[in-house]
Amino acid sequence: MKGAMELGAAAAVVKGGMNRGLAIFDFILRLVAIVATLASAIAMGTTDETLPFFTQFIQFRAEYEDFPTFTFFVVANSVVCVYLVLSLALSIFHIIRSHAHISRIILIFFDTAMLGLLTAAASAAAAIVYLAHKGNTRANWFAICQQFNSFCQRISGSLIGSFGGILILILLIFLSAVALSRR
Amino acid sequence: MKGAMELGAAAAVVKGGMNRGLAIFDFILRLVAIVATLASAIAMGTTDETLPFFTQFIQFRAEYEDFPTFTFFVVANSVVCVYLVLSLALSIFHIIRSHAHISRIILIFFDTAMLGLLTAAASAAAAIVYLAHKGNTRANWFAICQQFNSFCQRISGSLIGSFGGILILILLIFLSAVALSRR
Repeated sequence: MKGAMELGAAAAVVKGGMNRGLAIFDFILRLVAIVATLASAIAMGTTDETLPFFTQFIQFRAEYEDFPTFTFFVVANSVVCVYLVLSLALSIFHIIRSHAHISRIILIFFDTAMLGLLTAAASAAAAIVYLAHKGNTRANWFAICQQFNSFCQRISGSLIGSFGGILILILLIFLSAVALSRR
Repeated sequence: MKGAMELGAAAAVVKGGMNRGLAIFDFILRLVAIVATLASAIAMGTTDETLPFFTQFIQFRAEYEDFPTFTFFVVANSVVCVYLVLSLALSIFHIIRSHAHISRIILIFFDTAMLGLLTAAASAAAAIVYLAHKGNTRANWFAICQQFNSFCQRISGSLIGSFGGILILILLIFLSAVALSRR
């Protein structure tokens, strides 16, 4: 009986250690996601190109603010970035108390909501970037990337961080679910 | 001691009943989401408008297939719909065996992936629908909704089912997390 109890205690320690490992991994992933979303927001938010020729009345200029979708992209990435910074506190709490479960449920819920927000922003921006590159002959929308070359490269590149963030958030939700079930 | 054990057994029954209630709710929500995504896919997939005037060479016609984003929208909604139908099997399994947990983790993972797919499709389509309504003066993209009026109404309407599906998927992930933690 005593042996069985010791075995049980040992199993609990192993489970606790496993959960602690998951919590540390969770913390590191959040740090990576913070950098990725921040980089996306900054890369998109500073995009701005003025063409070297202009007529008397019009100066050819493209900014991210000309496209409401890109403004949404910058806002959403910033919101997710701030959320991830705040969530680090709970992540640290999970490293210390690896058996907490209500806080994990809260984290899953908000992670899922943020996943939705980030995916919406990234894919809406991707749809516009695709249009800028390819245009659409049926709707008479021309590919603007031929003129605004560096503008297009910047907006395309800034999507990468966002999509990286999406993958990390999916992984974070999965890790939280695993940790919850091992309690 | 016997009293405590009976109390424990009673608590387990209550917990089991609660989990069964969650599983039934999960099942119903999946049915609603199936209808919503299917309706979205069909509404978008049958959109097609031919204007009543045409020149000698060009007939003015708009189809959902003219926009790659809308094709993606139809495909993604169909995929999520089929996934939800398949996931009903696991949902029924959870009604019968309310203490299963590995299957719940699997379900959380795939639900999250499908949430990402559906959100990507819906918001990319929403970005294009917005462009169709408002156009973009800076890029010289004109609002095509003035000509293709009923086309625009259909594509706007078909977004509703998708966004409903997104909200339901977020709720499903949350419910699974709660069920996991109550095991």
